[in-house]
Amino acid sequence: MAFKDRTKIRKLIESAPEGSQVTLMGWVRTKRSNKNVTFIALNDGSCIQNYQLVADPSRISEEILKKANTGACLKAQGRVVASQGSGQSTELLAERIDILGEADPEKYPIQPKKHSMEFLRENAHLRVRTSTFAAIFRIRHHLAYAIHKYFHDKGFFYIHSPIITASDAEGAGETFRVTTLDLNKLPKTEEGLVDFRQDFFERETNLTVSGQLEGELAAMALSDVYTFGPTFRAENSNTTRHLAEFWMIEPEMAFYDAEDNQDLAEDFLQYIISYVLTHCKEDLAFLDKRAAEEEKSKKADQRSDLGLLDRLAFVVNNRFVRITYTEAWEILRNSKPNKKKKFAFPIEEWGTDLQSEHERYLVEKHFNKPVIITDYPKAIKSFYMRQNEDGKTVAAMDILFPGIGEIVGGSQREERLDKLSARMEELQISQDEMWWYLDTRRFGTAPHAGFGLGFERLVQFVTGMGNIRDVIPFPRTPGNAEF
Amino acid sequence: MAFKDRTKIRKLIESAPEGSQVTLMGWVRTKRSNKNVTFIALNDGSCIQNYQLVADPSRISEEILKKANTGACLKAQGRVVASQGSGQSTELLAERIDILGEADPEKYPIQPKKHSMEFLRENAHLRVRTSTFAAIFRIRHHLAYAIHKYFHDKGFFYIHSPIITASDAEGAGETFRVTTLDLNKLPKTEEGLVDFRQDFFERETNLTVSGQLEGELAAMALSDVYTFGPTFRAENSNTTRHLAEFWMIEPEMAFYDAEDNQDLAEDFLQYIISYVLTHCKEDLAFLDKRAAEEEKSKKADQRSDLGLLDRLAFVVNNRFVRITYTEAWEILRNSKPNKKKKFAFPIEEWGTDLQSEHERYLVEKHFNKPVIITDYPKAIKSFYMRQNEDGKTVAAMDILFPGIGEIVGGSQREERLDKLSARMEELQISQDEMWWYLDTRRFGTAPHAGFGLGFERLVQFVTGMGNIRDVIPFPRTPGNAEF
Repeated sequence: MAFKDRTKIRKLIESAPEGSQVTLMGWVRTKRSNKNVTFIALNDGSCIQNYQLVADPSRISEEILKKANTGACLKAQGRVVASQGSGQSTELLAERIDILGEADPEKYPIQPKKHSMEFLRENAHLRVRTSTFAAIFRIRHHLAYAIHKYFHDKGFFYIHSPIITASDAEGAGETFRVTTLDLNKLPKTEEGLVDFRQDFFERETNLTVSGQLEGELAAMALSDVYTFGPTFRAENSNTTRHLAEFWMIEPEMAFYDAEDNQDLAEDFLQYIISYVLTHCKEDLAFLDKRAAEEEKSKKADQRSDLGLLDRLAFVVNNRFVRITYTEAWEILRNSKPNKKKKFAFPIEEWGTDLQSEHERYLVEKHFNKPVIITDYPKAIKSFYMRQNEDGKTVAAMDILFPGIGEIVGGSQREERLDKLSARMEELQISQDEMWWYLDTRRFGTAPHAGFGLGFERLVQFVTGMGNIRDVIPFPRTPGNAEF
Repeated sequence: MAFKDRTKIRKLIESAPEGSQVTLMGWVRTKRSNKNVTFIALNDGSCIQNYQLVADPSRISEEILKKANTGACLKAQGRVVASQGSGQSTELLAERIDILGEADPEKYPIQPKKHSMEFLRENAHLRVRTSTFAAIFRIRHHLAYAIHKYFHDKGFFYIHSPIITASDAEGAGETFRVTTLDLNKLPKTEEGLVDFRQDFFERETNLTVSGQLEGELAAMALSDVYTFGPTFRAENSNTTRHLAEFWMIEPEMAFYDAEDNQDLAEDFLQYIISYVLTHCKEDLAFLDKRAAEEEKSKKADQRSDLGLLDRLAFVVNNRFVRITYTEAWEILRNSKPNKKKKFAFPIEEWGTDLQSEHERYLVEKHFNKPVIITDYPKAIKSFYMRQNEDGKTVAAMDILFPGIGEIVGGSQREERLDKLSARMEELQISQDEMWWYLDTRRFGTAPHAGFGLGFERLVQFVTGMGNIRDVIPFPRTPGNAEF
């Protein structure tokens, strides 16, 4: 029989009439035998559930059963019957099993036992065969799909902003250089410096830190656009929250002011989280249990009040609180932890940036709701944010989530050429290099706004994974570029 | 009134009851006046159609109308009325117009006249404000969306394969190096070579040429996956078909053989092209006309038999012909152009690669249908393709389209460890570096297959654009990394 006649386990579980003949293909998760029968739990990645094969030694040879070890790939044909055991309503009475690929139990790294997360990261090519990682990557898929669907349904256009770029105007951090020069034979200028005019692009280039500026160009013609692409930071940060390569979603909208931007971001986040709550029930239930187990190993004072599913419902069911930076600063300054000097970074002067501990205090203790902080001091925000009348603040917003802190950052953009130009001069950002960006303010400028969502932060929030390296298939961090 | 109360032009055209009060925002395409009235064609990017504003000087001041030049951004409030003129059924009787952003007609580069494509590439930040480019990028969006929807609906999972990678195993071409080393102060080893152990990833890294190998890893756990991400080739090719940075879609399926792979690719291409035929009617009609104009400027013998829309229908309505390389070689060898020495690369020996001229002959002259060529000589294909029984060919496929030649390349993958390993040894591909790839054959290997679609080639085919630089917002080619 042809491969395409196989049934996926997800489909089989959804609608498998008892008595039907089916062919399954997948990988063995576990095998257990007694003298009368062998039970094999098969998984094909289509869903979190394994499907139980019942192999009677009178039909299935010992030789085959011996090879049906954890990790082996097999094809099983048989009849769907009501299950005698608990845990499943039906099972497959195997009439024939073929081993497609063996997995030597002495050598196969992913055995049915608890592996450390670090071990699984070192085996990232195989970790997707575990329940946890398969669930994470299925949810990651559904989140990505929900994001495209949300914007598409609203009439936004997906724009591919460039990955290799000659500008680092955002100043968002250290960048990776991109070059085709032979590093062992670098061409030099008369001054003895590297001659980048001989490089592939005839200038210095790096990997993008954000697609926003190019998104703005497109919004100034198509009205509503979004990017969804990889971005890069060459920061030497070995933390559970940083990746050198990560994916960002950056919508940009003409004819939006700061409040429209907040409305969109809130609606968007609630939509995509609702979407996975509806479409990834089993995977989320599994990760909810997993997160609860993890919590138990933490000290009492570090445990979350909310379980994973509770946290997701919390975001979907609560209107986000909106306060200005100045209001947040006042709350924090007068807060108990600040007065009792519990913050690692005490809140004193107006104008200092908020740290994760402050953001979590606001979300998890003070408001007990997702929080949007607006109108930050201009000194701690980017040059392109719209300057408020007060001369001190800009029309920025950060959205804060429980457990994770900032998940979205955005702003209304400065659409007034004179203000933008003056701010760039203050910050010594080259207006010559950014001629194309300034052109959008020179010709038919329009009020506009946008925001950025770090995709892996979102996946972390939704799956409850503590380490960002566990929510992207092949993480890139200092010293790590395997696979 | 708030920005969010504006009506998008697409919506207005779809359902604008005469007499309703609306607010439009967008950019002026053209303005023409007689002594009684001024007509302004406004476009907001939501669709290809402009909406006509009728401005009576008794209501709208001369000062405002003077500023409503091509490229200016404005807000217009008024009443929808039946149009007197041809070209539209309704128009807006303007009661108030505000200029949001001026565009000095002496300086604004995009005037309502024919600009050269090269001029527009140099102004890629503004070219999206033209009808042609806005249509292209809307279609690009719909194609991307259709691709996600197709795979999602079929139970595939979207996988983000890494962009920065330490492997160039595919040997697909020249790569871009990624580094954080200071090129003017490179650290050296004792042997005097660059010490990459001091680089960010503690080894040499480059930009990915394909996500396939990582896609295979995921398919060996989740069954059906696809990637959709940027890939890079540092080839010094200044052609109308090459980009240094382009987007690829690479599905990878466990339990698929070569024929299943062909079936999927054919169904997939027909689906996404049908999708845009349904959802991008106006934009395609515009580009169809544009392509017809272009054809007129070509010499008679270089003109296409089919118009743009005909070509799209041709792909959707014809089953693809499937032939082996050997059959194709025989057809070509015996073809008129080969016998009359019209091919730049004459077809003689079995085993040579097919050129674009041969592919186009098969599709456009011999079969007059899209063609899938299978079972290529192993010497001209990649190491990972499944070896056929004949010892000479592999289970590869290329899909050829009219006008464009190869649009998809794929294969059943070599799942047998011994065969794969032997082939890698023959080709001197390091098995040590590729330990993780070989692990999938060591542990639970499964028959699997996949293919790659160059997204920009697809957009070129669908939009009829002759130069690939015109179907990606900000093209990267040798010497070009502006914006």
